[in-house]
Amino acid sequence: MPTIVMKFGGTSVANIEKINAAADKVAAEVVRGNKVVVVVSAMSGVTNKLVGYCREMSSMYDIREYDTVVSSGEQITSGLMAMALQERDITARSWLGWQVPIHTDNVHGQASITSIETDALQERLNLGEVAVVPGFQGLTERNRISTLGRGGSDTTAVALAAALKADRCDIYTDVDGVYTTDPRIVPEAQKINRISYEEMIELASLGAKVLQTRSVEVAMKNNVNLQVLCSFGEEIGSDLPGTLLTANEDDMETKIVSGVAYQADEAKVTLLNVPDIPGIASKIFKPLSNAAVNVDMIVQNISSNGDATDMTFTVSKGELPRALKALEQVEGVDDLEIRVAEDLAKVSVVGVGMITNHGIASTMFETLAEKNINIEVVSTSEIKISVLIKRDYMELAVRALHSAFGLDQE
Amino acid sequence: MPTIVMKFGGTSVANIEKINAAADKVAAEVVRGNKVVVVVSAMSGVTNKLVGYCREMSSMYDIREYDTVVSSGEQITSGLMAMALQERDITARSWLGWQVPIHTDNVHGQASITSIETDALQERLNLGEVAVVPGFQGLTERNRISTLGRGGSDTTAVALAAALKADRCDIYTDVDGVYTTDPRIVPEAQKINRISYEEMIELASLGAKVLQTRSVEVAMKNNVNLQVLCSFGEEIGSDLPGTLLTANEDDMETKIVSGVAYQADEAKVTLLNVPDIPGIASKIFKPLSNAAVNVDMIVQNISSNGDATDMTFTVSKGELPRALKALEQVEGVDDLEIRVAEDLAKVSVVGVGMITNHGIASTMFETLAEKNINIEVVSTSEIKISVLIKRDYMELAVRALHSAFGLDQE
Repeated sequence: MPTIVMKFGGTSVANIEKINAAADKVAAEVVRGNKVVVVVSAMSGVTNKLVGYCREMSSMYDIREYDTVVSSGEQITSGLMAMALQERDITARSWLGWQVPIHTDNVHGQASITSIETDALQERLNLGEVAVVPGFQGLTERNRISTLGRGGSDTTAVALAAALKADRCDIYTDVDGVYTTDPRIVPEAQKINRISYEEMIELASLGAKVLQTRSVEVAMKNNVNLQVLCSFGEEIGSDLPGTLLTANEDDMETKIVSGVAYQADEAKVTLLNVPDIPGIASKIFKPLSNAAVNVDMIVQNISSNGDATDMTFTVSKGELPRALKALEQVEGVDDLEIRVAEDLAKVSVVGVGMITNHGIASTMFETLAEKNINIEVVSTSEIKISVLIKRDYMELAVRALHSAFGLDQE
Repeated sequence: MPTIVMKFGGTSVANIEKINAAADKVAAEVVRGNKVVVVVSAMSGVTNKLVGYCREMSSMYDIREYDTVVSSGEQITSGLMAMALQERDITARSWLGWQVPIHTDNVHGQASITSIETDALQERLNLGEVAVVPGFQGLTERNRISTLGRGGSDTTAVALAAALKADRCDIYTDVDGVYTTDPRIVPEAQKINRISYEEMIELASLGAKVLQTRSVEVAMKNNVNLQVLCSFGEEIGSDLPGTLLTANEDDMETKIVSGVAYQADEAKVTLLNVPDIPGIASKIFKPLSNAAVNVDMIVQNISSNGDATDMTFTVSKGELPRALKALEQVEGVDDLEIRVAEDLAKVSVVGVGMITNHGIASTMFETLAEKNINIEVVSTSEIKISVLIKRDYMELAVRALHSAFGLDQE
């Protein structure tokens, strides 16, 4: 009997009516003879409201208490989903993170799942009971509730699928799949039928807000069959044409560039007079890491005068104050000069085809030059080229690149 | 170093501003050198909203899932209160029911606390840390979340005070104490400065909705110094003139009647042709008990014809359909005739002084007769006389009795 994990995001469980619609999809899979684990997000709006309470209470709130407060959103949905399934004569119960338990490390607010005890859960699945698990939450070694960070419900679903060796992990969301870029910016964006884990990671982390990056990493590591489906389609299960995530196989679509991603609200921090000595990068980035600042692009220029260099990195605008505070902790650099630029955006082209195709970068730069868009920073990986530009030009850049790389729908 | 438990009800933690005001009161007690456990209700409105979700989802919802959903309300407040205390440089953390743990039986929705493990909590209290415990919730033997029933946060507070051998348990609410009757009906109602546990139990169960009855029972059993205080007063701690609950000591106020309580929406069920044989009451009330119907007054008349008798009991109007259904299960009574009367109210006078003072009943009956109020059922205990009357006359009866027993403020 196949085991499947079905995950429903916030808009898919936004109210009682939608939870009922999601329960119908679960019921259909049960009738098909599957053992089903359902992972639910908080009803849309609830998490923001709870986060709002925390922020209103304290600008420097205890992240452990934040986890206690915010995790209740998914807890509520899990109980309601279990009720909805019972209404359909399906045996079901909620399993909170601490009840499964889903063990995590102690990094509250951004915890990583370390292990999942599946014995008790598996026993009940074998009896035909559906398990409803609130996403986004776990249990630390210290017996506190942890959360996995925004979007962490996807990770819960994939990690459960991996631990249970599930045959399939279906992520239901309010889009019907992964697109070549954001259709709100480029109406000609197309749905991607198959995409590699790696490309999805690059697209997800850059703003194609369909799947949380870590969930794709976990899927890739454990070879989980991951599918993105639309909650609001008529059809259910395998009939629904979503986006399938696969290993990077030969039968991938042959486009060189798979998609154009973007990230608004970036800030750039440039450090001048950085001594050009071994170990200096570690000295600078350790305080940032300790402060849990997510540093994105890092660029180091060639040293111009022989004993000092410049270093540039980007962080999201919201993390900038924390980043600047952390930089005060940098030791062994006396006359560090810090320059900050806000209102920037990152635009990236992503594709496994880049590995074997040259000229992608120059096409990208030419396209931006034609639109008079100045590039502030460039950063590349094997399957991605990212540029930092002024925020005002972001949409224009995305549209131009989407068209230049032949992604527009005909 | 004294240990105190401070409990804040829903209106006292209704929003971030009020949680902050409550945190100020906690901070003052910490500064005074007390070890403090804070028990919090859900922010007002939250529990009703969550209960509403459950009802909307299913008319026959799984009460275990209900507990999972509804308990999140107090969970949210506990995290926010811990944050508020930390903002005041007080070390604090939330302890959810399953983290303490507060063990309960498996009667979901109406669970009773069976034991509280205080070692870990006590250890942190000894280090000067404030413990914030969400009220109303516990952990069953089966590792599920239970709730104690509406108003259960009072019980959580008193049970914690008993388990920790606390010096005081302060219940902060939106009234400034217990009154001789409902001031909305009798503007001349006076605040009671001291009241015995027993009187409070009679008043609480009859509608003076200040403290949950079970919490007073637990306080009485464990001799917990229980105090009802107003959250919204300027003063704090022992300076605040609330109502102190004490054992029935000699220095009680010398009023014979302490208060007049009432309960609207009562229904009366009269059973005719009940065989007058031993064990018959058990046969009738067992099905009611099995159906979890709360039977209130029970009156059995003297048998008139030697082999059959009449029996009358009251239930709240809302429970009447369930009660009548349960009566269908009564075995061994062939021609049981059932008569129902709705739109009744119970009015009671309560006072420990009654034990040694005669004539209370006759004063009560005379007072009602003067107002032409017909008495349908009478029931008495050592410290209470209750009458069942037509609902329309309830306010009139309460006012007349309050005045007749000299309770009106001068």
